[in-house]
Amino acid sequence: MKAVLIIADGLGGRPSDLDGKTCLEAAHTPNLDELARRGALGLLDPIGPGIRPGSDTAHLSLLGYDPYRSYTGRGVFECLGMEMDVKPGDVCFRANFATVEETPEGLLLIDRRAGRIESGQSDLAAALSAIELSNGVKVEFKASTQHRGALLLRGEGLSRHVSETDPHKTGTLVPEARALVDDPGAARTAAAMNEFIRKSYEILKDHPVNRARIEAGKPPANVVLLRGASDLPHLKPIAEQYGVRGAVVAGAALYRGVAVAGGMTRIDAPGATGGVDTDLVSKARTALKALESFDYVFIHVKGTDNKGHDRDAEGKKSFIERIDAELIGTLMGGLDWKEAHLAFTGDHTTPIDYGDHSAEPVPILYAGPNVRTDAATEFGERAAGRGGLGRWSGRALPILLNYNNWAPKFGS
Amino acid sequence: MKAVLIIADGLGGRPSDLDGKTCLEAAHTPNLDELARRGALGLLDPIGPGIRPGSDTAHLSLLGYDPYRSYTGRGVFECLGMEMDVKPGDVCFRANFATVEETPEGLLLIDRRAGRIESGQSDLAAALSAIELSNGVKVEFKASTQHRGALLLRGEGLSRHVSETDPHKTGTLVPEARALVDDPGAARTAAAMNEFIRKSYEILKDHPVNRARIEAGKPPANVVLLRGASDLPHLKPIAEQYGVRGAVVAGAALYRGVAVAGGMTRIDAPGATGGVDTDLVSKARTALKALESFDYVFIHVKGTDNKGHDRDAEGKKSFIERIDAELIGTLMGGLDWKEAHLAFTGDHTTPIDYGDHSAEPVPILYAGPNVRTDAATEFGERAAGRGGLGRWSGRALPILLNYNNWAPKFGS
Repeated sequence: MKAVLIIADGLGGRPSDLDGKTCLEAAHTPNLDELARRGALGLLDPIGPGIRPGSDTAHLSLLGYDPYRSYTGRGVFECLGMEMDVKPGDVCFRANFATVEETPEGLLLIDRRAGRIESGQSDLAAALSAIELSNGVKVEFKASTQHRGALLLRGEGLSRHVSETDPHKTGTLVPEARALVDDPGAARTAAAMNEFIRKSYEILKDHPVNRARIEAGKPPANVVLLRGASDLPHLKPIAEQYGVRGAVVAGAALYRGVAVAGGMTRIDAPGATGGVDTDLVSKARTALKALESFDYVFIHVKGTDNKGHDRDAEGKKSFIERIDAELIGTLMGGLDWKEAHLAFTGDHTTPIDYGDHSAEPVPILYAGPNVRTDAATEFGERAAGRGGLGRWSGRALPILLNYNNWAPKFGS
Repeated sequence: MKAVLIIADGLGGRPSDLDGKTCLEAAHTPNLDELARRGALGLLDPIGPGIRPGSDTAHLSLLGYDPYRSYTGRGVFECLGMEMDVKPGDVCFRANFATVEETPEGLLLIDRRAGRIESGQSDLAAALSAIELSNGVKVEFKASTQHRGALLLRGEGLSRHVSETDPHKTGTLVPEARALVDDPGAARTAAAMNEFIRKSYEILKDHPVNRARIEAGKPPANVVLLRGASDLPHLKPIAEQYGVRGAVVAGAALYRGVAVAGGMTRIDAPGATGGVDTDLVSKARTALKALESFDYVFIHVKGTDNKGHDRDAEGKKSFIERIDAELIGTLMGGLDWKEAHLAFTGDHTTPIDYGDHSAEPVPILYAGPNVRTDAATEFGERAAGRGGLGRWSGRALPILLNYNNWAPKFGS
């Protein structure tokens, strides 16, 4: 048996998205509708009823972990998603390349994303990884897509209880990191962050990549903003719980990172970008190939959420139609349906009118030989409200693995 | 955006209520049916599936608190609902004025509610608040509606782990309070309760209010029964969680108290009694007025539960019809439906055949622009079982606030 879990980020919507329909309901999705006919639908609260999920906490919950017990912050998933070797005691951060202007008062934030820089980031990352801090804390920096990156600090007695240095608003000064608890480890971590940020500015401002950007009239990536301080969460690997091996195919580091934290193996699909320009056929083919050596694959698709944050209803609808045609279509052609179960859902709702995550449940679809089918003939939020599976919280993956008779027994 | 949560106490019923229909199903409710057509229905377990709720624990859960973590007992909500200034360390009680007869064995209970006394209670309360206890514990007593009141004890090292002094049965002796744990604070609290009850009898038996009652052939309110010992629960204020300000409109002290404990502001509606004789148009108007300065209002209606406890099916049905016509009708006329969400539900089921709370889920209705509508055309228990929102536990208010984009994000 094989299993495929597909999470389309921010899939859910509201009737206000498109003339009384959600983007998903308005989209032409013949393949998802066919799977709905072959399977069954339900409503899924990613974390719990009325709880507005972050992407990281929602993914923990969908993979079967309790985010209230296990979540330590976002940075560690960014580092794990970039194949950094996070050890207990390390403190990790999500990092942004950003543009600042030096003023007598401090570094003034001009662009939080350094013009969504598209090239040269790995050279900048190498320069940042060479930074040496006076208190002996070791530094490792990796660039991800565009302005995104991850920072790992390693040293004695560090703490994740530090404030972020991303003011989330241009025209303000980049704040100093500070300890959030009265603890020498937190003070030491904040000091390391502040020294790193100062040195990052000194190194980046005259870096050849940035000299070329300035000449080309682009904002230089001359500082690093840090948020999501976190250490390694205690997650019992899925392979240990279920006795099966999984792979993750995801363009964006965060989602790879959550899956890797749960013990899945990262497999890269050529052309997967973590954006709307991603190659969805490539992701499906990579997943099908991975199923030759893994028991299950988790495919993450990010573009739905991006278009929700952009408040672009037509763009979200079109991307859902591409998911249906390119990703689901390719998977449907390649899976042996007598020997496989598939789940399709989102990690939260991102309505167009709001442009951010909201707490409504998402629709979920299970298809395969062991699913008790219902009367569904289409896939969507309100179809899922009439679905045969009812409504529950989290655990999309454990439920999928159970259809393959892989779930561990609790009790005897 | 604005939001209104309406909880009709003990709303739910059973098919045995009225010839195969629940009181709610049998009632003529054109306004609730119209809201059902505009919105969506679900089944709500106030605390959890198969858990038979108290009114206090159910309300904590509906407001978004976990009653298993936060509930300390009923008395503190009675005190808060009477605008008493409860501080950490205080021990609070629900109190009943009752009628006893002195016997050589002790105080024999004749009437648990002192003939549902209707006047003079505040004079009695003032006399009780003047009681001085030998161990230095301070006393504050307030009368609520009819025989109901609240007692607050303040002093060093008090404990809520004490037994109640309400035998819940006439013809038996009023028991002594005793410590439920081996702890000097609990012993001290029980001693204070026993001295208070003795002194309350001494003061009340010859009080002019009671001399007049005896002359009129009514049972005197000559003692106070204490139950629901509790201290201040740790509840993070809703305003702090969601960044919005709420008001509560409720005739009965307990429900005001739970809302005040969650940080809402008490607003009194003229003619609101906490009974079936309450002025429902006044409550709706008061709520609409409150929405001019508050973000959301919680309206509590008690009469449905009273009629359920009375096993009066026709009375419960009629009161539901009054809620529909007077409360919902007035709200529907006054709300701006493009800018508001409304939720209507109960805090538990009070079936006629049982006359007490039962554990079946209650129907819940959400209406407003961001609700994913379903096929419902009427409001009722079995209509809700076919509703598009499925079934979940508690958190009626957080789900309502999310529709207004007010929910805090967990994770990033």
